[in-house]
Amino acid sequence: MTDAENYDQFSGVSGFRSIDAGTGKPSGEVFPVHSVADVEATCASAEAAFDAYRAINNDARASFLEAIGDAIVAIGDELIVTAMRESGLPRARLEGERSRTVGQLKLFADVVRRGGWMGVRIDPAQPDRAPLPRPDLRLRMVPLGPVAVFGASNFPLAFSTAGGDTASALAAGCPVVVKGHPAHPATGALVANAILTAARVSGMPDGVFGHLVGPDNALGAALVEDTRIAAVGFTGSRRGGLALIKLAQARKVPIPVYAEMSSINPVLLLPEALKARADALGTAFVASLTMGAGQFCTNPGLVLAIEGEGLNAFVASAAKAMTDADASTMLTGGIHAAYEGGVASLSSHDAVNTIARGKVGEGIAQGQAALFETSAAQFLNDPALGDEVFGASSLLVRCRNESELRTVLVAAEGQLTATIHMDGGDTDLAARLIPTLERKAGRILANGWPTGVEVAHAMVHGGPFPATSDGRTTSVGSLAINRFLRPVSYQNISEALLPAVIRDDTDAPRLIDGVFTV
Amino acid sequence: MTDAENYDQFSGVSGFRSIDAGTGKPSGEVFPVHSVADVEATCASAEAAFDAYRAINNDARASFLEAIGDAIVAIGDELIVTAMRESGLPRARLEGERSRTVGQLKLFADVVRRGGWMGVRIDPAQPDRAPLPRPDLRLRMVPLGPVAVFGASNFPLAFSTAGGDTASALAAGCPVVVKGHPAHPATGALVANAILTAARVSGMPDGVFGHLVGPDNALGAALVEDTRIAAVGFTGSRRGGLALIKLAQARKVPIPVYAEMSSINPVLLLPEALKARADALGTAFVASLTMGAGQFCTNPGLVLAIEGEGLNAFVASAAKAMTDADASTMLTGGIHAAYEGGVASLSSHDAVNTIARGKVGEGIAQGQAALFETSAAQFLNDPALGDEVFGASSLLVRCRNESELRTVLVAAEGQLTATIHMDGGDTDLAARLIPTLERKAGRILANGWPTGVEVAHAMVHGGPFPATSDGRTTSVGSLAINRFLRPVSYQNISEALLPAVIRDDTDAPRLIDGVFTV
Repeated sequence: MTDAENYDQFSGVSGFRSIDAGTGKPSGEVFPVHSVADVEATCASAEAAFDAYRAINNDARASFLEAIGDAIVAIGDELIVTAMRESGLPRARLEGERSRTVGQLKLFADVVRRGGWMGVRIDPAQPDRAPLPRPDLRLRMVPLGPVAVFGASNFPLAFSTAGGDTASALAAGCPVVVKGHPAHPATGALVANAILTAARVSGMPDGVFGHLVGPDNALGAALVEDTRIAAVGFTGSRRGGLALIKLAQARKVPIPVYAEMSSINPVLLLPEALKARADALGTAFVASLTMGAGQFCTNPGLVLAIEGEGLNAFVASAAKAMTDADASTMLTGGIHAAYEGGVASLSSHDAVNTIARGKVGEGIAQGQAALFETSAAQFLNDPALGDEVFGASSLLVRCRNESELRTVLVAAEGQLTATIHMDGGDTDLAARLIPTLERKAGRILANGWPTGVEVAHAMVHGGPFPATSDGRTTSVGSLAINRFLRPVSYQNISEALLPAVIRDDTDAPRLIDGVFTV
Repeated sequence: MTDAENYDQFSGVSGFRSIDAGTGKPSGEVFPVHSVADVEATCASAEAAFDAYRAINNDARASFLEAIGDAIVAIGDELIVTAMRESGLPRARLEGERSRTVGQLKLFADVVRRGGWMGVRIDPAQPDRAPLPRPDLRLRMVPLGPVAVFGASNFPLAFSTAGGDTASALAAGCPVVVKGHPAHPATGALVANAILTAARVSGMPDGVFGHLVGPDNALGAALVEDTRIAAVGFTGSRRGGLALIKLAQARKVPIPVYAEMSSINPVLLLPEALKARADALGTAFVASLTMGAGQFCTNPGLVLAIEGEGLNAFVASAAKAMTDADASTMLTGGIHAAYEGGVASLSSHDAVNTIARGKVGEGIAQGQAALFETSAAQFLNDPALGDEVFGASSLLVRCRNESELRTVLVAAEGQLTATIHMDGGDTDLAARLIPTLERKAGRILANGWPTGVEVAHAMVHGGPFPATSDGRTTSVGSLAINRFLRPVSYQNISEALLPAVIRDDTDAPRLIDGVFTV
């Protein structure tokens, strides 16, 4: 969703400063550029902290997560003002994002305390079983080891330094080394200090959290290649994600990379819904598309519908709303340039018609919204039409019938979300489409917009490649903790040596001989 | 554990026959060599079956798994006799393996019926929540899609055609395409027919199971590269596993490969245990090492102990038992040749001393057991001493003290198992070592031998790379079903469209707002 390549704009400096998103000019303090030697030292500390950190009991670990939230709140308005300057995002959005960040830490604290994440299984010995006795077998999940986290530029709080990846990895018992996003170093420094304060106050081992900053890709590469790093969380561009995956796979010991990369989030407008409320759908669609300058990984970048009067009414309504849509400051100059490039490709594409553009902005890096259309046949003819344009741009694909719509869906790449707008009369059609959507996306939603991602137990912010590098996981919601765990089985280990959570007197939720017991 | 490279011995034929393991000569019927066109057709059938198969209810799917077991038993003694001829393994072992295969299918049937595998989570809507209402969110696990299974040569029943990977993938709702192991094509054909019979009798969709055979690696490569294959299960050599991983990662849409590849299964003999029972340990160790010609992925190929009288007594006892150990027919000529090569390297290594060899065999492909020793310093000096020698060969590493022992452990690659032999007086030492063992292996066992792998809920037959390609999983035991599942979240989907298992009236085990409910 963001541009790792954007890092390049900072290259070649030994200290670097924030770019004010509104002016495009450096501002604020100068940050040191960490070196490969700093990576080495930080990973050594993380490794040294690992056994101590993972041995800490669930309650203390949960309290640490809550203390991070408290320390973030304690920064006060300086955090909001700094993030506004660095990201160009408005105050209300960043205040909401701070609440979300703190809420996310609390959710994981709750998950850690409940203990289901430990996946305890006990199969007691059967000494009299024939022909062979059964040994005593006990299983628990253990953390993978130190985790490298690459934050996103578009969520400088909720998906950056103390964001979802950091929270879930710390919850799992993994020390975290954050490679701070160079688009918001001052915001990142404030949050990193809050985490370090919380660690100290909570009595966590030194090295449980490390923070590396610098504008150059080499820093992140060195981090992923460090032998002490056991997993990587990344939210950003497809190019950036694929580069990290390649590095991780080329290691002597390959490690998992959880990269959330690229999604255009198809929205299906079914015929009866269009008949009933095409106007309202057009307006609401543009509101979702243009919110936050369209800089969401769940932005509705693809609209699919079957030709008809309803669709024409939707287009008219969306075009009107689009024409009235204000331009917004984008996160960085690099993201704005990439957006302009994507929109220019669609504008000049022979098979694509421009339905409407939003207002032209007056400041720098102003994203001007864009709505395009093409036919199903043309969409299928050129895979580049399915590429993500990060920002407030969307492509409507006009389908002649259900069969064409299904063919476009099947041809689309893996997605974070798929949305259906439907009325009662669309139920049969929707039922026929859902199996295809289940294979294509991590989240299916009806009669809403994909741009709100609830932090919850039943959330999946994931999906088949290239939406993520690992569609078996989620990066938002409590299930995200599983990414950083692996099972270990203990056979005939004496009570004195067994970890407490798998002893007979454990109070952890557990399977006993396959039957769930609380 | 087996040799994918061994496939080459059959190359260049359009039909191929079993090699009788006892004579090294072709025997029995001629099997057709499947072509890339056959891969295409088989994968198309698997894909066509997928949505129908995954929609079948848990009880019917469980009954199908049980019917496979019944059909395997119904083959009768022909299956045992055929597997004996093709593998060289004795009757009792293969009868036990058949029981294990059937038991494994029943275990997964039970897991499917209980429904915990669906991972249901429900976060009900909170329409009055401020500042924004919470949507209704429901999550379930869905199967990945058609799975390619590469069976092992050393378990022609329990880890081949209807083995653990097939059982767990079918349990998850994935059609399976088996690439039959060319070392036991006749055994594979009997079992494949049993699965197809069970599918027909149980009313499963055509294509739910496919079986491809041929002696050439190109067949397996085409299978992994087929766009319809969503995951791969493999048990075999490191070279074979790494080749499949490379193919899977180079696909336009990369897919997970669960490869169980290489492990030398360190056994730690702690001082008090050696004092108390060095003789008995030596005898029992050689029995574990030489069982089944040492052709187990959990074979104890590395022994670590601290110098002392106890260790000397262990060595004397093991040497005596080794000298008396009969040679056994190995699975294939290729495996025997690789074993001889590995043993020759150790025998001629400057830093390695041969403690004892087993008896020389009289037939072809007879594995002659071998026990070697070296010092910790030498072991650390040459990483090749940690390479797996598949067969009844083991290397004792003499350590001067606890610190050296720990250094050797840390330096060792990832393992399937780690074993501690200990007495009460070793408890403190064992406690200090367990955190290291947890990071190094998937299963830790005390006062036993790693070569028995119980099929259970709390079993982990997995471990950090290169023991497996994905240490977050297991290939034996009920947890193996998770390898073939991914989460999908449903947001504000109407009751009429929701899958039954996540409706309000579901009886599946579930988390409601994060709290477990049955």
